Amino acid sequence: MKIITVERKVLKKNDEVAAENRETFRRQGIFAINLLSSPGAGKTTLLEKTIAALAGALRLAVVEGDVQTDLDAQRISRQGVPVVQIVTHGACHLEAPLVQDAMARLAMDSIDLLIIENVGNLVCPASFDLGEHVKVIVASTPEGDDKPIKYPKMFRVCDVCVLNKIDLLPHVDFDTERFKRFALEINPRITFFETSARTGEGVEEWVEWLRRRSAPAR
Amino acid sequence: MKIITVERKVLKKNDEVAAENRETFRRQGIFAINLLSSPGAGKTTLLEKTIAALAGALRLAVVEGDVQTDLDAQRISRQGVPVVQIVTHGACHLEAPLVQDAMARLAMDSIDLLIIENVGNLVCPASFDLGEHVKVIVASTPEGDDKPIKYPKMFRVCDVCVLNKIDLLPHVDFDTERFKRFALEINPRITFFETSARTGEGVEEWVEWLRRRSAPAR
Repeated sequence: MKIITVERKVLKKNDEVAAENRETFRRQGIFAINLLSSPGAGKTTLLEKTIAALAGALRLAVVEGDVQTDLDAQRISRQGVPVVQIVTHGACHLEAPLVQDAMARLAMDSIDLLIIENVGNLVCPASFDLGEHVKVIVASTPEGDDKPIKYPKMFRVCDVCVLNKIDLLPHVDFDTERFKRFALEINPRITFFETSARTGEGVEEWVEWLRRRSAPAR
Repeated sequence: MKIITVERKVLKKNDEVAAENRETFRRQGIFAINLLSSPGAGKTTLLEKTIAALAGALRLAVVEGDVQTDLDAQRISRQGVPVVQIVTHGACHLEAPLVQDAMARLAMDSIDLLIIENVGNLVCPASFDLGEHVKVIVASTPEGDDKPIKYPKMFRVCDVCVLNKIDLLPHVDFDTERFKRFALEINPRITFFETSARTGEGVEEWVEWLRRRSAPAR
């Protein structure tokens, strides 16, 4: 799979282009998610497991956002899924025009599910609508159970929280109930999944949710 | 210990105020470090262990930067160290004027070592000089060994890298040599410490370095 790197100066206003992206998703029957997290929470590993589990069931494509390197796109492309890398060259979040450029490099009429992996950052990406249907925060147990109240905006804008690295629970100071209570205080409608992308535990529930949400859009 | 929360609109240019901060540190004989990391890498826990180890040896003060909450300042103040909390209300990094305001609330003539704990973010804080002598990146093993090349600017601007959560090494896919090789590619002069702030392993070497670096400034 060829990796195309998109780099463009942001010209139009973010929200205007996000609305155009949303309209493209609607027209093409694509379910689009924006995957957000701290650096190293396991977004790419979760994505690898998700792609493997969805093989044959949904036509998937990925947009990878990174400050630097196309390492993540290389990992995804090894699974035979169309992927476009956005390198932000220092910028701390994706914006809708960059995603629109990436979309122009994908066969949008043969995609059921588009996953946009944002830059690893719990602050800035929360403020930028990319046109996605759902924002998903991937939190990981080693980061600590206080993250929802320390980074409230991120948890407020996300509809789904994947709590990842549950295989490390015996080895870290993390109280899952406390974490969920904090997240629900910030955002009472947030839906949780608990996974270990590394071992595969819990990934099936998350994948089933993606399958169910992607289906009506087709 | 009273926690004072500093909130101010940034008025002066960052670098101008950073130079003023630097001059204050020089005049008062203070060694100042800027502690940076992803969310949840263990900065505050490392700080707690550092304070305990330095008790009686150095007069320490802390400036805590957080997007929201004074949880970290509460943790630090329980150790009897002067602490000022900066709440950025959504902003993704500390700037020098905020730190200057915080400094105005500390007895700067009775401090040997000032530790500024920045907002948890591997991108934006790398671009803002606070006037500190040394920037320290706290990386943690669950984040993965590819972080130096994925967030190169942060590793380029830091003089010291504390690799934390080494107690989790048996449970995560992390190659310490690969991590160090990547970091040295970005920044050949970076100094490493390896710690588990949770168990205390390796903290003494880091504390010894702080002790040595803080001493000549007095």
